[in-house]
Amino acid sequence: MGKKGTSKRSHKRDPSLFFDPRSIAVIGSLREGLFGGYVVIKSLLSAGYRGEIYPINPSNGVVHGLRVYPSIKEVEADIDLALIMINARAVPQVLGECAEKSIKAVVLVSDGFAERDQEGARLQNEIVAFARERGIRIIGPNTAGIVNTSNGLNPCPYEAGYYKLKAGSVAICSQTGMSNPQAFPYPDLGLGVSKICDFGNKCDLDECDMLEYLEKDPATQVISMYLESIRDGRRFLEICKRVSAQKPILILKSGRTEEGAKASESHTGAMAVDDKIFEAACSQGGVLRLREFNALFELPKIFAMQPLPRGNRLGIISYTGGVGVLATDEGTRYGLAVTRLSRKTSEILNGIFPGLGVMPVDIGPMAPVVKDFLSLYPKILKSVMADENVDALFNVLWADSTGMHTESYIKAYEEVKGDTQKPLVTWVYGPDKGLVRDIAERLEYLGFPVFSDPETAIKAMGLAFRYTRIREGK
Amino acid sequence: MGKKGTSKRSHKRDPSLFFDPRSIAVIGSLREGLFGGYVVIKSLLSAGYRGEIYPINPSNGVVHGLRVYPSIKEVEADIDLALIMINARAVPQVLGECAEKSIKAVVLVSDGFAERDQEGARLQNEIVAFARERGIRIIGPNTAGIVNTSNGLNPCPYEAGYYKLKAGSVAICSQTGMSNPQAFPYPDLGLGVSKICDFGNKCDLDECDMLEYLEKDPATQVISMYLESIRDGRRFLEICKRVSAQKPILILKSGRTEEGAKASESHTGAMAVDDKIFEAACSQGGVLRLREFNALFELPKIFAMQPLPRGNRLGIISYTGGVGVLATDEGTRYGLAVTRLSRKTSEILNGIFPGLGVMPVDIGPMAPVVKDFLSLYPKILKSVMADENVDALFNVLWADSTGMHTESYIKAYEEVKGDTQKPLVTWVYGPDKGLVRDIAERLEYLGFPVFSDPETAIKAMGLAFRYTRIREGK
Repeated sequence: MGKKGTSKRSHKRDPSLFFDPRSIAVIGSLREGLFGGYVVIKSLLSAGYRGEIYPINPSNGVVHGLRVYPSIKEVEADIDLALIMINARAVPQVLGECAEKSIKAVVLVSDGFAERDQEGARLQNEIVAFARERGIRIIGPNTAGIVNTSNGLNPCPYEAGYYKLKAGSVAICSQTGMSNPQAFPYPDLGLGVSKICDFGNKCDLDECDMLEYLEKDPATQVISMYLESIRDGRRFLEICKRVSAQKPILILKSGRTEEGAKASESHTGAMAVDDKIFEAACSQGGVLRLREFNALFELPKIFAMQPLPRGNRLGIISYTGGVGVLATDEGTRYGLAVTRLSRKTSEILNGIFPGLGVMPVDIGPMAPVVKDFLSLYPKILKSVMADENVDALFNVLWADSTGMHTESYIKAYEEVKGDTQKPLVTWVYGPDKGLVRDIAERLEYLGFPVFSDPETAIKAMGLAFRYTRIREGK
Repeated sequence: MGKKGTSKRSHKRDPSLFFDPRSIAVIGSLREGLFGGYVVIKSLLSAGYRGEIYPINPSNGVVHGLRVYPSIKEVEADIDLALIMINARAVPQVLGECAEKSIKAVVLVSDGFAERDQEGARLQNEIVAFARERGIRIIGPNTAGIVNTSNGLNPCPYEAGYYKLKAGSVAICSQTGMSNPQAFPYPDLGLGVSKICDFGNKCDLDECDMLEYLEKDPATQVISMYLESIRDGRRFLEICKRVSAQKPILILKSGRTEEGAKASESHTGAMAVDDKIFEAACSQGGVLRLREFNALFELPKIFAMQPLPRGNRLGIISYTGGVGVLATDEGTRYGLAVTRLSRKTSEILNGIFPGLGVMPVDIGPMAPVVKDFLSLYPKILKSVMADENVDALFNVLWADSTGMHTESYIKAYEEVKGDTQKPLVTWVYGPDKGLVRDIAERLEYLGFPVFSDPETAIKAMGLAFRYTRIREGK
């Protein structure tokens, strides 16, 4: 038992103790620094966690105003969650104390297990067997931990320089610490996060457990995952089918190549899965597959911020024909088809400027020569969005060097906002990074996602359309 | 003649008059504003163009301290280049005056030609026929123009908010104005630019002419191109074969899909080319094909800043195993293979921290627990770079929230700089965008390209390796 690391059905799977603990024991070094228990407690307090925090360290004393206990055995109250960051060899003993204290959830930050060597793998098997026997669930080992934005649970073991994340509907799970707060500038993201989980070596709690948990988590509407391996292919497929009918699941899986799979096995100690099998599972399970690391953080925005497209008829407004062609190419890959404007819209646009009323709508020729172009801009955007032939819109904004475009763009989006049940994705470009960023931030504040390049904007819309089809059972 | 727009061999092809004119006539509105002749002249003067500038407008008067002539006929001196930004219908007459004045190079910014309608297409054919007859070369129409950073030639027709571009070895040519200064924050790019050219409708001067010109241009070492169509497939292939043996050619071609090709024909009036034929031409011609718009500006950095890899053995240093796996996957796509460390390097690294001496080198476990980690960092980088089994290195840097890593990273790169003839690509990540940017800018200042995501860094190295093979004739 435990050797293959597969969990039994009888084992309680629900990870809610991890994300809604009333009390946390933080076991490890409490020395002031940039890593360890000191940072975990600082982060929890700063993020507004309201539960009890028990610092555990033989040093006794006080840290961040909290009494330090020499061991969890000394804590009289119940403890829901233990976060362990001690030398790997000391883990079995502390896990024993956790069992005595009836702790059922452990985040095992410590490394030096299956990812390190044979001895570490043996140690990992030992703790898994023990935990299973005593009904303890483990996230990790070799994990950067978890976050729950709805209760200030951000026990980040590394100093991230910030503690509160914007709360929102995107859950980000990952088989690497690269998605935790110390690695990523979450405050600069347009999207809000519900949960973060780094599975680490995934010795117990895995992607299937998290999917089942997130399925029922009311804060989560979109799931974005980085995986290197799948623990149980059959269960994974079954769960994906069920969950994807309600919430979009986006997965980046590395180890796509034989070489990558080998590299994965060596660093997590987990068996990688043949990519063809995974691809088939994604397709049957309604999973949207990602291809780039940054996509984990960027593509969920479309689901978090916009309605789904009802069909595949893509409208494009742009300042140059070139982007229209790029968007057409890219859209085709995802089953999007550039639409034709209805006669009505075409007439409205041609009335604004001769030749404007064709798709892709190219405002390039008009912009430099029509004096009141900016005051007309909202009408152009509204007309195209309202067109009965348009299911989804890709809008390209040029931020000129003076910043004079900004207010007209914002006004146009404000006017469109209440109006429509169609998705709108945007790319902003221009000669001044600051102005580009300013427009992007203001649009995202209004609820309209802005993407970092034209291909990603179209890809987002393409995934949204695919998900429409998945929801329809197609 | 002229109908198909194919130029004759007898026609003088050399575009050097465009990029090294001793004098320029700027023909069009000179009204103060954000578009037009007023901006062109301001931009030329601010960029440091030293040739003569003749503003041409019936208004007479003075603009930016320069006398305005009512027509080019009134200018007594010779004019090398005319930049025309007037109503399309008035173009034939002005082109006639250019011919009388023996002007041989015209940048035709005006739109309303083949990209607009049948009437515009007819007009375009008319001017092409006339120009050919009189030995005039045209860039455009419907172009945002050209740039030459070596002589301050930046006649940008749109107010870009900046005028000088960093001079360097990358030529960017494009069948859209999206690559001109008003569209892109060139001052924020790590790379320096030699020439920019927007072909516009490509009625005369085309990709082949530019490739031949750039082949001989000593300032240009890398060519990055966005194309929607190829004018003459056979000539293109022949020229690419010759030029790619000396300078890398990177091409993004849109109109990859049938739908995209149609969109392209409608906005440029040019015939698109079957993508399979283009793909074959790229492969035979030694062209490196790009897939994303931003790649036009980002991927040339590897060629502009780093030596070519001698082989495909890729080293990786990273803070997490996850990135190692992603990089392994991505590298495999480009024929890169993650290498094994030599015994010597392995021993050095294991001496620094147990288990560090395996590839991918994962400094994650060491960083939080080894006190003098930062002082050891340069030794780690140097040892891996010096390893006889490493042809190329992908280095991942974590910028922690305090900024304390920065100086050690910079020091390490400074030490490696003089040492090696191997290429090094970098990705920086962390919780603070400002610190990440700071490290990236300082590394690029040292000559080490930093890429926006791990996949792009590996792709850059992959293209460099492909180009090594192209140079070897493989």
